[in-house]
Amino acid sequence: MFNAMAATDIIMLHNLEFPDDTRPVILCDYNYQQHPILFEMPPHSHDFYEILFFENGNGTHYIDFEALPVHPNRVYMLLPGQIHYLNDISLRARALLFDKNFLDIAAMQLQLFIPFQEAKFVDIPTETQPVFKKLMELIQMEQQSETINFNLIKHYLQALLLALDKHYKPTANKKLNDRLYPVFELIKTHFTTEREPGFYAAQLQCSPKYLGSLLKSVTGKTLK
Amino acid sequence: MFNAMAATDIIMLHNLEFPDDTRPVILCDYNYQQHPILFEMPPHSHDFYEILFFENGNGTHYIDFEALPVHPNRVYMLLPGQIHYLNDISLRARALLFDKNFLDIAAMQLQLFIPFQEAKFVDIPTETQPVFKKLMELIQMEQQSETINFNLIKHYLQALLLALDKHYKPTANKKLNDRLYPVFELIKTHFTTEREPGFYAAQLQCSPKYLGSLLKSVTGKTLK
Repeated sequence: MFNAMAATDIIMLHNLEFPDDTRPVILCDYNYQQHPILFEMPPHSHDFYEILFFENGNGTHYIDFEALPVHPNRVYMLLPGQIHYLNDISLRARALLFDKNFLDIAAMQLQLFIPFQEAKFVDIPTETQPVFKKLMELIQMEQQSETINFNLIKHYLQALLLALDKHYKPTANKKLNDRLYPVFELIKTHFTTEREPGFYAAQLQCSPKYLGSLLKSVTGKTLK
Repeated sequence: MFNAMAATDIIMLHNLEFPDDTRPVILCDYNYQQHPILFEMPPHSHDFYEILFFENGNGTHYIDFEALPVHPNRVYMLLPGQIHYLNDISLRARALLFDKNFLDIAAMQLQLFIPFQEAKFVDIPTETQPVFKKLMELIQMEQQSETINFNLIKHYLQALLLALDKHYKPTANKKLNDRLYPVFELIKTHFTTEREPGFYAAQLQCSPKYLGSLLKSVTGKTLK
Protein backbone atom coordinates (compact mmCIF):
# COMPACT_ATOMS: atom_id res chain seq x y z
CA MET A 1 0.00 0.00 0.00
CA PHE A 2 1.61 3.24 -1.08
CA ASN A 3 1.45 5.22 2.17
CA ALA A 4 2.30 2.27 4.35
CA MET A 5 5.33 1.32 2.29
CA ALA A 6 6.67 4.87 2.34
CA ALA A 7 6.23 5.09 6.09
CA THR A 8 8.07 1.81 6.61
CA ASP A 9 11.04 3.04 4.62
CA ILE A 10 11.16 6.30 6.55
CA ILE A 11 11.15 4.73 9.95
CA MET A 12 14.41 3.10 9.01
CA LEU A 13 15.84 6.54 8.21
CA HIS A 14 14.60 9.37 10.43
CA ASN A 15 11.03 9.57 11.60
CA LEU A 16 10.97 12.50 14.00
CA GLU A 17 8.58 12.45 16.91
CA PHE A 18 6.82 15.55 18.09
CA PRO A 19 9.60 17.53 19.78
CA ASP A 20 7.71 18.57 22.92
CA ASP A 21 5.31 16.32 24.77
CA THR A 22 4.00 19.14 26.97
CA ARG A 23 2.23 20.91 24.10
CA PRO A 24 0.45 19.87 20.89
CA VAL A 25 1.48 22.78 18.67
CA ILE A 26 4.69 24.77 18.20
CA LEU A 27 5.47 27.74 15.97
CA CYS A 28 9.17 28.09 15.24
CA ASP A 29 11.58 30.02 13.08
CA TYR A 30 13.55 28.12 10.50
CA ASN A 31 16.77 29.88 9.71
CA TYR A 32 20.31 28.69 9.43
CA GLN A 33 21.73 31.15 11.97
CA GLN A 34 19.48 29.96 14.77
CA HIS A 35 19.03 26.30 13.89
CA PRO A 36 21.83 25.02 11.60
CA ILE A 37 20.89 21.45 12.52
CA LEU A 38 17.59 21.79 10.61
CA PHE A 39 19.51 22.46 7.41
CA GLU A 40 22.08 19.74 7.95
CA MET A 41 19.49 17.06 8.53
CA PRO A 42 19.26 14.33 5.88
CA PRO A 43 15.86 13.55 4.31
CA HIS A 44 13.46 12.72 7.13
CA SER A 45 9.81 12.42 8.00
CA HIS A 46 7.75 13.34 11.06
CA ASP A 47 4.94 11.69 12.91
CA PHE A 48 3.20 15.09 13.06
CA TYR A 49 1.91 17.76 10.69
CA GLU A 50 4.13 20.61 9.62
CA ILE A 51 3.09 23.81 7.86
CA LEU A 52 6.15 25.44 6.35
CA PHE A 53 5.71 29.06 5.37
CA PHE A 54 8.61 30.44 3.36
CA GLU A 55 9.38 34.08 3.98
CA ASN A 56 12.62 34.23 2.01
CA GLY A 57 14.68 32.13 -0.31
CA ASN A 58 14.61 30.64 -3.75
CA GLY A 59 16.05 27.21 -3.07
CA THR A 60 14.55 23.78 -3.36
CA HIS A 61 12.34 21.82 -1.04
CA TYR A 62 12.31 18.08 -1.58
CA ILE A 63 9.12 16.26 -0.67
CA ASP A 64 8.98 12.51 -1.20
CA PHE A 65 12.12 12.98 -3.33
CA GLU A 66 10.39 15.43 -5.66
CA ALA A 67 12.21 18.76 -6.09
CA LEU A 68 9.80 21.62 -5.47
CA PRO A 69 10.62 25.31 -5.81
CA VAL A 70 10.73 27.63 -2.81
CA HIS A 71 9.38 31.16 -3.10
CA PRO A 72 8.44 33.80 -0.57
CA ASN A 73 4.80 33.48 0.52
CA ARG A 74 4.65 29.85 -0.49
CA VAL A 75 3.22 27.43 2.04
CA TYR A 76 3.89 23.72 2.21
CA MET A 77 1.94 21.29 4.30
CA LEU A 78 3.79 18.12 5.28
CA LEU A 79 1.64 15.21 6.33
CA PRO A 80 2.84 12.62 8.83
CA GLY A 81 5.08 10.17 7.00
CA GLN A 82 6.07 12.40 4.10
CA ILE A 83 9.82 12.63 3.57
CA HIS A 84 11.28 16.07 3.15
CA TYR A 85 14.60 17.78 2.92
CA LEU A 86 15.88 21.36 2.76
CA ASN A 87 19.35 22.15 1.53
CA ASP A 88 19.57 25.90 0.98
CA ILE A 89 20.93 27.70 4.02
CA SER A 90 19.62 31.06 2.80
CA LEU A 91 16.03 29.89 3.33
CA ARG A 92 13.96 31.53 6.00
CA ALA A 93 10.67 30.02 7.01
CA ARG A 94 8.22 29.77 9.85
CA ALA A 95 7.15 26.28 10.74
CA LEU A 96 3.98 25.40 12.54
CA LEU A 97 4.23 21.87 13.90
CA PHE A 98 1.16 20.19 15.28
CA ASP A 99 0.38 16.84 16.74
CA LYS A 100 -1.64 14.31 14.74
CA ASN A 101 -4.52 14.68 17.20
CA PHE A 102 -4.47 18.46 17.51
CA LEU A 103 -7.21 19.08 14.94
CA ASP A 104 -10.20 16.85 15.37
CA ILE A 105 -11.82 14.74 12.69
CA ALA A 106 -14.52 17.36 12.15
CA ALA A 107 -11.88 19.91 11.20
CA MET A 108 -10.22 17.43 8.88
CA GLN A 109 -13.55 16.74 7.23
CA LEU A 110 -13.79 20.42 6.38
CA GLN A 111 -11.30 19.41 3.72
CA LEU A 112 -8.80 21.86 5.09
CA PHE A 113 -6.00 19.86 3.64
CA ILE A 114 -7.35 19.40 0.15
CA PRO A 115 -5.22 22.14 -1.44
CA PHE A 116 -2.10 20.47 -0.15
CA GLN A 117 -3.10 17.00 -1.26
CA GLU A 118 -3.50 18.24 -4.77
CA ALA A 119 -0.64 20.68 -5.14
CA LYS A 120 1.78 20.10 -2.21
CA PHE A 121 2.08 23.86 -1.84
CA VAL A 122 -0.09 26.95 -1.93
CA ASP A 123 1.02 30.44 -2.88
CA ILE A 124 -0.68 32.90 -0.57
CA PRO A 125 -2.63 35.39 -2.69
CA THR A 126 -1.68 39.04 -2.11
CA GLU A 127 -4.98 39.83 -0.40
CA THR A 128 -4.56 36.93 2.03
CA GLN A 129 -0.98 37.80 3.04
CA PRO A 130 -2.00 40.31 5.77
CA VAL A 131 -4.47 37.72 7.15
CA PHE A 132 -1.77 35.07 7.23
CA LYS A 133 0.70 37.49 8.85
CA LYS A 134 -1.76 38.55 11.57
CA LEU A 135 -2.67 34.95 12.37
CA MET A 136 0.99 33.99 12.64
CA GLU A 137 1.52 36.95 14.99
CA LEU A 138 -1.47 35.90 17.09
CA ILE A 139 -0.13 32.34 17.36
CA GLN A 140 3.28 33.72 18.32
CA MET A 141 1.75 35.98 20.97
CA GLU A 142 -0.26 33.17 22.47
CA GLN A 143 2.73 30.87 22.44
CA GLN A 144 4.75 33.42 24.38
CA SER A 145 2.05 34.03 26.97
CA GLU A 146 2.41 32.74 30.50
CA THR A 147 -0.31 30.12 30.26
CA ILE A 148 -0.89 29.01 26.67
CA ASN A 149 -4.49 28.36 25.67
CA PHE A 150 -4.11 25.68 22.99
CA ASN A 151 -7.77 25.90 22.13
CA LEU A 152 -7.19 29.50 21.12
CA ILE A 153 -4.26 28.46 18.91
CA LYS A 154 -6.51 25.80 17.38
CA HIS A 155 -8.95 28.50 16.26
CA TYR A 156 -6.07 30.52 14.79
CA LEU A 157 -4.80 27.43 12.94
CA GLN A 158 -8.24 26.54 11.59
CA ALA A 159 -8.75 30.14 10.49
CA LEU A 160 -5.36 30.06 8.78
CA LEU A 161 -6.23 26.90 6.88
CA LEU A 162 -9.64 28.25 5.90
CA ALA A 163 -8.07 31.51 4.72
CA LEU A 164 -5.63 29.54 2.56
CA ASP A 165 -8.37 27.33 1.20
CA LYS A 166 -10.54 30.31 0.37
CA HIS A 167 -8.49 31.47 -2.58
CA TYR A 168 -7.46 28.04 -3.64
CA LYS A 169 -8.31 27.41 -7.28
CA PRO A 170 -9.26 23.79 -7.71
CA THR A 171 -8.06 22.06 -10.83
CA ALA A 172 -10.11 19.57 -12.79
CA ASN A 173 -9.15 16.95 -10.22
CA LYS A 174 -10.95 18.70 -7.38
CA LYS A 175 -14.08 16.57 -7.65
CA LEU A 176 -12.09 13.39 -7.71
CA ASN A 177 -10.09 14.54 -4.70
CA ASP A 178 -13.27 15.29 -2.80
CA ARG A 179 -14.21 11.66 -3.22
CA LEU A 180 -10.75 10.42 -2.37
CA TYR A 181 -10.41 12.52 0.76
CA PRO A 182 -12.17 10.03 3.07
CA VAL A 183 -10.03 7.27 1.61
CA PHE A 184 -6.82 9.11 2.47
CA GLU A 185 -8.12 9.79 5.96
CA LEU A 186 -8.91 6.12 6.53
CA ILE A 187 -5.52 5.10 5.21
CA LYS A 188 -3.73 7.56 7.47
CA THR A 189 -5.62 6.20 10.47
CA HIS A 190 -5.38 2.51 9.77
CA PHE A 191 -2.39 1.85 7.56
CA THR A 192 -0.30 0.36 10.35
CA THR A 193 -2.85 -2.38 11.06
CA GLU A 194 -5.03 -2.75 7.97
CA ARG A 195 -3.61 -3.58 4.56
CA GLU A 196 -6.59 -5.28 2.93
CA PRO A 197 -8.47 -3.25 0.30
CA GLY A 198 -11.63 -5.00 1.56
CA PHE A 199 -11.33 -3.24 4.91
CA TYR A 200 -11.24 0.22 3.35
CA ALA A 201 -13.95 -0.60 0.82
CA ALA A 202 -16.25 -1.79 3.63
CA GLN A 203 -15.71 1.44 5.58
CA LEU A 204 -16.50 3.45 2.49
CA GLN A 205 -19.45 1.29 1.48
CA CYS A 206 -18.14 0.55 -1.97
CA SER A 207 -16.61 -2.48 -3.66
CA PRO A 208 -12.86 -3.13 -3.37
CA LYS A 209 -12.71 -3.07 -7.16
CA TYR A 210 -14.28 0.40 -7.38
CA LEU A 211 -11.97 1.72 -4.67
CA GLY A 212 -8.97 0.27 -6.46
CA SER A 213 -9.83 1.93 -9.76
CA LEU A 214 -10.55 5.25 -8.05
CA LEU A 215 -7.14 5.24 -6.36
CA LYS A 216 -5.39 4.03 -9.47
CA SER A 217 -6.92 6.83 -11.55
CA VAL A 218 -5.55 9.55 -9.27
CA THR A 219 -2.37 8.19 -7.75
CA GLY A 220 -1.38 5.60 -10.32
CA LYS A 221 -1.08 3.19 -7.41
CA THR A 222 -3.25 0.49 -5.95
CA LEU A 223 -3.98 -0.43 -2.36
CA LYS A 224 -1.74 -3.48 -2.46
CA MET B 1 -40.00 33.86 35.21
CA PHE B 2 -37.49 36.65 35.25
CA ASN B 3 -36.10 36.38 31.73
CA ALA B 4 -39.44 35.64 30.19
CA MET B 5 -41.14 38.56 31.84
CA ALA B 6 -38.42 40.94 30.73
CA ALA B 7 -38.64 39.66 27.18
CA THR B 8 -42.40 40.10 27.13
CA ASP B 9 -42.07 43.70 28.22
CA ILE B 10 -39.44 44.39 25.59
CA ILE B 11 -41.40 42.97 22.74
CA MET B 12 -43.99 45.62 23.49
CA LEU B 13 -41.29 48.27 23.18
CA HIS B 14 -38.61 47.53 20.61
CA ASN B 15 -37.27 44.05 20.01
CA LEU B 16 -34.95 44.41 17.05
CA GLU B 17 -34.54 41.55 14.64
CA PHE B 18 -31.23 40.69 13.08
CA PRO B 19 -30.73 43.51 10.57
CA ASP B 20 -29.55 41.41 7.63
CA ASP B 21 -30.99 38.04 6.73
CA THR B 22 -28.29 37.29 4.18
CA ARG B 23 -25.56 36.91 6.82
CA PRO B 24 -25.34 35.67 10.41
CA VAL B 25 -22.72 38.12 11.71
CA ILE B 26 -22.02 41.81 11.20
CA LEU B 27 -19.27 44.04 12.52
CA CYS B 28 -20.22 47.70 12.56
CA ASP B 29 -19.04 51.05 13.82
CA TYR B 30 -21.11 52.80 16.43
CA ASN B 31 -20.59 56.51 16.27
CA TYR B 32 -22.97 59.41 16.24
CA GLN B 33 -21.64 60.95 13.03
CA GLN B 34 -22.32 57.85 10.97
CA HIS B 35 -25.35 56.43 12.73
CA PRO B 36 -27.20 59.07 14.77
CA ILE B 37 -30.25 56.81 14.86
CA LEU B 38 -28.43 54.35 17.14
CA PHE B 39 -28.03 57.08 19.75
CA GLU B 40 -31.55 58.39 19.43
CA MET B 41 -33.13 54.99 19.90
CA PRO B 42 -35.11 54.47 23.12
CA PRO B 43 -34.30 51.47 25.36
CA HIS B 44 -34.60 48.35 23.21
CA SER B 45 -33.64 44.71 23.01
CA HIS B 46 -32.50 42.44 20.19
CA ASP B 47 -33.25 38.88 19.24
CA PHE B 48 -29.50 38.40 18.59
CA TYR B 49 -26.20 38.66 20.45
CA GLU B 50 -24.28 41.90 20.48
CA ILE B 51 -20.70 42.42 21.61
CA LEU B 52 -20.13 46.11 22.18
CA PHE B 53 -16.50 47.17 22.38
CA PHE B 54 -16.01 50.74 23.54
CA GLU B 55 -13.08 52.52 21.99
CA ASN B 56 -13.85 55.98 23.31
CA GLY B 57 -16.18 57.69 25.70
CA ASN B 58 -16.97 57.93 29.38
CA GLY B 59 -20.74 57.91 29.27
CA THR B 60 -23.28 55.49 30.58
CA HIS B 61 -24.60 52.27 29.14
CA TYR B 62 -27.92 51.12 30.53
CA ILE B 63 -28.53 47.37 30.56
CA ASP B 64 -31.80 46.12 31.96
CA PHE B 65 -32.23 49.64 33.39
CA GLU B 66 -28.99 49.41 35.35
CA ALA B 67 -26.54 52.29 34.72
CA LEU B 68 -23.13 50.89 33.84
CA PRO B 69 -20.02 52.97 33.21
CA VAL B 70 -18.42 53.16 29.78
CA HIS B 71 -14.63 53.16 29.46
CA PRO B 72 -12.26 52.62 26.55
CA ASN B 73 -11.35 48.94 26.15
CA ARG B 74 -14.44 47.82 27.99
CA VAL B 75 -16.53 45.11 26.34
CA TYR B 76 -20.19 44.45 26.92
CA MET B 77 -22.02 41.36 25.77
CA LEU B 78 -25.74 41.75 25.28
CA LEU B 79 -27.76 38.57 25.27
CA PRO B 80 -30.97 38.22 23.28
CA GLY B 81 -33.75 39.86 25.24
CA GLN B 82 -31.65 42.19 27.36
CA ILE B 83 -32.74 45.81 27.22
CA HIS B 84 -30.09 48.41 26.60
CA TYR B 85 -29.75 52.06 25.92
CA LEU B 86 -26.95 54.47 25.05
CA ASN B 87 -27.34 58.21 25.48
CA ASP B 88 -23.92 59.79 25.11
CA ILE B 89 -23.25 60.92 21.56
CA SER B 90 -19.50 61.13 22.17
CA LEU B 91 -19.32 57.33 22.51
CA ARG B 92 -17.44 55.38 19.91
CA ALA B 93 -17.75 51.63 19.80
CA ARG B 94 -17.49 48.66 17.51
CA ALA B 95 -20.41 46.29 17.63
CA LEU B 96 -20.29 42.68 16.60
CA LEU B 97 -23.82 41.41 16.06
CA PHE B 98 -24.43 37.72 15.60
CA ASP B 99 -27.41 35.56 15.10
CA LYS B 100 -28.65 33.31 17.93
CA ASN B 101 -27.62 30.24 15.94
CA PHE B 102 -24.24 31.49 14.76
CA LEU B 103 -22.24 29.80 17.51
CA ASP B 104 -23.22 26.21 18.09
CA ILE B 105 -24.13 24.66 21.41
CA ALA B 106 -20.65 23.17 21.78
CA ALA B 107 -19.14 26.65 21.65
CA MET B 108 -21.66 27.90 24.20
CA GLN B 109 -20.79 25.02 26.48
CA LEU B 110 -17.21 26.22 26.49
CA GLN B 111 -18.65 28.78 28.87
CA LEU B 112 -17.52 31.55 26.61
CA PHE B 113 -20.17 33.78 28.01
CA ILE B 114 -19.56 33.20 31.69
CA PRO B 115 -17.61 36.42 32.25
CA PHE B 116 -20.50 38.42 30.91
CA GLN B 117 -23.12 36.61 32.95
CA GLU B 118 -21.27 37.46 36.09
CA ALA B 119 -20.07 40.98 35.44
CA LYS B 120 -21.99 42.30 32.38
CA PHE B 121 -18.74 43.77 31.07
CA VAL B 122 -15.08 42.84 30.80
CA ASP B 123 -12.16 45.26 30.73
CA ILE B 124 -9.65 44.00 28.20
CA PRO B 125 -6.32 43.55 29.97
CA THR B 126 -3.43 45.50 28.41
CA GLU B 127 -1.71 42.34 27.11
CA THR B 128 -4.91 41.21 25.38
CA GLN B 129 -5.61 44.52 23.64
CA PRO B 130 -3.37 43.80 20.61
CA VAL B 131 -5.02 40.36 20.27
CA PHE B 132 -8.46 41.93 20.37
CA LYS B 133 -7.43 44.62 17.87
CA LYS B 134 -5.97 42.11 15.41
CA LEU B 135 -9.05 39.87 15.61
CA MET B 136 -11.35 42.83 14.98
CA GLU B 137 -9.20 43.76 11.97
CA LEU B 138 -9.37 40.19 10.68
CA ILE B 139 -13.17 40.16 11.02
CA GLN B 140 -13.33 43.51 9.25
CA MET B 141 -11.11 42.26 6.41
CA GLU B 142 -13.16 39.13 5.94
CA GLN B 143 -16.39 41.11 6.03
CA GLN B 144 -15.11 43.36 3.25
CA SER B 145 -13.96 40.50 1.06
CA GLU B 146 -15.81 39.58 -2.08
CA THR B 147 -17.14 36.25 -0.82
CA ILE B 148 -17.38 36.20 2.96
CA ASN B 149 -16.48 32.92 4.65
CA PHE B 150 -18.64 32.99 7.77
CA ASN B 151 -16.94 29.91 9.14
CA LEU B 152 -13.71 31.90 9.17
CA ILE B 153 -15.40 34.73 11.07
CA LYS B 154 -16.75 32.14 13.50
CA HIS B 155 -13.20 31.08 14.34
CA TYR B 156 -12.21 34.73 14.84
CA LEU B 157 -15.18 35.27 17.12
CA GLN B 158 -14.51 32.15 19.17
CA ALA B 159 -10.86 33.15 19.48
CA LEU B 160 -11.93 36.61 20.58
CA LEU B 161 -14.20 35.20 23.29
CA LEU B 162 -11.53 32.75 24.47
CA ALA B 163 -8.95 35.55 24.59
CA LEU B 164 -11.32 37.63 26.74
CA ASP B 165 -12.10 34.70 29.00
CA LYS B 166 -8.43 33.90 29.47
CA HIS B 167 -7.65 36.82 31.71
CA TYR B 168 -11.01 36.87 33.36
CA LYS B 169 -10.67 36.70 37.12
CA PRO B 170 -13.55 34.70 38.50
CA THR B 171 -15.10 35.89 41.71
CA ALA B 172 -16.31 33.61 44.48
CA ASN B 173 -19.48 33.07 42.47
CA LYS B 174 -17.67 31.31 39.61
CA LYS B 175 -18.47 27.80 40.85
CA LEU B 176 -22.09 28.66 41.35
CA ASN B 177 -22.24 30.18 37.88
CA ASP B 178 -20.75 27.04 36.39
CA ARG B 179 -23.70 25.14 37.80
CA LEU B 180 -26.19 27.76 36.72
CA TYR B 181 -24.90 27.99 33.17
CA PRO B 182 -26.98 25.07 31.83
CA VAL B 183 -30.03 26.58 33.54
CA PHE B 184 -29.58 29.88 31.74
CA GLU B 185 -29.09 28.04 28.47
CA LEU B 186 -32.32 26.10 28.93
CA ILE B 187 -34.18 29.24 29.88
CA LYS B 188 -32.91 31.08 26.83
CA THR B 189 -34.02 28.22 24.61
CA HIS B 190 -37.42 27.50 26.12
CA PHE B 191 -38.67 30.62 27.90
CA THR B 192 -41.23 31.44 25.24
CA THR B 193 -43.01 28.11 25.64
CA GLU B 194 -42.09 26.71 29.06
CA ARG B 195 -42.77 28.57 32.26
CA GLU B 196 -43.03 25.71 34.74
CA PRO B 197 -40.04 25.19 37.07
CA GLY B 198 -40.79 21.46 36.82
CA PHE B 199 -39.87 21.47 33.13
CA TYR B 200 -36.42 22.96 33.77
CA ALA B 201 -35.79 20.80 36.84
CA ALA B 202 -36.62 17.65 34.82
CA GLN B 203 -34.17 18.65 32.08
CA LEU B 204 -31.48 19.25 34.69
CA GLN B 205 -32.32 16.11 36.66
CA CYS B 206 -32.87 17.90 39.93
CA SER B 207 -35.89 18.82 42.03
CA PRO B 208 -37.81 22.03 41.29
CA LYS B 209 -37.15 23.08 44.88
CA TYR B 210 -33.38 22.71 44.50
CA LEU B 211 -33.40 24.60 41.22
CA GLY B 212 -35.45 27.36 42.78
CA SER B 213 -33.04 27.84 45.68
CA LEU B 214 -30.03 27.76 43.34
CA LEU B 215 -31.50 30.50 41.17
CA LYS B 216 -32.66 32.51 44.17
CA SER B 217 -29.18 32.42 45.73
CA VAL B 218 -27.55 33.94 42.68
CA THR B 219 -30.15 36.12 41.03
CA GLY B 220 -32.43 36.89 43.96
CA LYS B 221 -35.25 35.77 41.69
CA THR B 222 -37.24 32.59 41.32
CA LEU B 223 -38.49 30.82 38.24
CA LYS B 224 -42.03 32.01 38.72
